[in-house]
Amino acid sequence: MPPARTTKQRKQDTLDRLERDEDVWVATADGEDATPYLVPLSFLWDGSTLLLATPAAGPTGRNLRTTGRARLGVGPTRDVVMIEGTVQALTAAGLPDDVGDAFAEKTGFDPRRQTSEYLYFRVTPQRVQAWREANELAGRELMREGEWIAD
Amino acid sequence: MPPARTTKQRKQDTLDRLERDEDVWVATADGEDATPYLVPLSFLWDGSTLLLATPAAGPTGRNLRTTGRARLGVGPTRDVVMIEGTVQALTAAGLPDDVGDAFAEKTGFDPRRQTSEYLYFRVTPQRVQAWREANELAGRELMREGEWIAD
Repeated sequence: MPPARTTKQRKQDTLDRLERDEDVWVATADGEDATPYLVPLSFLWDGSTLLLATPAAGPTGRNLRTTGRARLGVGPTRDVVMIEGTVQALTAAGLPDDVGDAFAEKTGFDPRRQTSEYLYFRVTPQRVQAWREANELAGRELMREGEWIAD
Repeated sequence: MPPARTTKQRKQDTLDRLERDEDVWVATADGEDATPYLVPLSFLWDGSTLLLATPAAGPTGRNLRTTGRARLGVGPTRDVVMIEGTVQALTAAGLPDDVGDAFAEKTGFDPRRQTSEYLYFRVTPQRVQAWREANELAGRELMREGEWIAD
């Protein structure tokens, strides 16, 4: 097992992964009966928030609208970034054109061109953790209450 | 994009992945306030159920005990197996020795040797889906109500 990374290195690796990775695991819960839901989705990172899109009527879309909360996993299971965030729903009409274009270019998928109704969701991280193996569980916290922890 | 796999091939690939993969993404929800939780855990597949272990007092342990439900993701985001399952909690004392030994051998981690209290959780799949890319969304259902769909 390689030595544990420093906080500074973990933050840099986390930002690199958010910039380059294609997909994120999105965990949500039904606000009524607490049924857990999980699905991988493409995303666009703008330096401080993640933009997702999913059918308005699907489980993830419904849960995000009604609860406003998600927990995200980025990366493979032995090099994870975990994100707890608050969520804002945006219609295609409410999204600036250039952001919609950037999303379509990054993900190869343009929700604005679908016949079924999609919603965009902007996730603002409140808590971020990153670890690879058991020796990195200590020091995994990188952001608390929306603020990056000092390196 | 390669052509969509047959149901038979998807089921075989799913069973292979359950046999060989090391980790599973485990999504749960708090039964009180529907807070979603997500974490990767090691697992052991016995041919029909997945065995997990996690601290009794952690979010995943608490949620599994109180709700008895989980949604699992196995594999990378472009080759996923999604599992909805019912969950049974087992103490180390309630687990047969040979099963505990098999878990420790597969995962490289023995919850019975930890000083903090761990619980085992047996997840029985009720619904299984598998897909790679968008062309495999049709036909992704492999198990319904605990029964594999005929090939």
